[in-house]
Amino acid sequence: MLKALFPKKKSEKEYRNPVPTVDIIIEVKGGIILIERRNAPYGWAIPGGFVDYGESLEDAARREAEEETSLKVTLKEMLYTYSNPARDPRRHTVSTVFTATAKGNPTAADDAKNLAVFKLTALPKELAFDHAQILADYIKYKKTGRFPKPS
Amino acid sequence: MLKALFPKKKSEKEYRNPVPTVDIIIEVKGGIILIERRNAPYGWAIPGGFVDYGESLEDAARREAEEETSLKVTLKEMLYTYSNPARDPRRHTVSTVFTATAKGNPTAADDAKNLAVFKLTALPKELAFDHAQILADYIKYKKTGRFPKPS
Repeated sequence: MLKALFPKKKSEKEYRNPVPTVDIIIEVKGGIILIERRNAPYGWAIPGGFVDYGESLEDAARREAEEETSLKVTLKEMLYTYSNPARDPRRHTVSTVFTATAKGNPTAADDAKNLAVFKLTALPKELAFDHAQILADYIKYKKTGRFPKPS
Repeated sequence: MLKALFPKKKSEKEYRNPVPTVDIIIEVKGGIILIERRNAPYGWAIPGGFVDYGESLEDAARREAEEETSLKVTLKEMLYTYSNPARDPRRHTVSTVFTATAKGNPTAADDAKNLAVFKLTALPKELAFDHAQILADYIKYKKTGRFPKPS
């Protein structure tokens, strides 16, 4: 009753910490998997999502990859952890990006999303979040073996 | 008034996400800097702390390093992001670990803490959190140039 009269306000405490997420660059035959977002921010995106409380980043990455592509992935490397406060216009997220391999044909688990395999030489121009930067870092890593450096 | 009668309960919402932190392995003349914790979990620890909302991991690392050692550091590499839910017994934290260099003599900014420089060949046995694992990964990286792999 009181709850209805005084709905819980979003307190400062709820937003005092950035929120951890994971993104997974999944290498399959022909390229890497991207997902087309149906909601803002629009564009193609690396599969990923929020990390649950009590879940490691690695477990979150395997879970999100499977939820979004129906593939069981094997994680290879941690590319970098991206945390620019402007990387997601909705809230401050901190995304740890993994590279992974998978066999089989990816299927969008969620009908609301398109999924496609892109060659690294023919990535879509419209990429959501900071994923253009992440994929540029990934391509550089693939060519040189060097991981991104702290700015 | 109502606030006093009905103090804000810690909602699930507040704890649904792990909390991002940073730790900084600061290379100085003679070794790396560790800080002795006065509160549980006890032991020596790599300098670090919580990331503020709206702050990048890199900025948080420079800020925490200076707050804890009085040194301005230059970040070198991101070693790995550690997220085992059991790594901190108090709450689930996700720590991104940087390596850094600094000149000058470190000083514990907080009088409640001891600070010392340790050679990598003579690290203390009592290390807090998962810092023994992190330092083992760091030593391996220094020897081989290889970063930790996802488990």
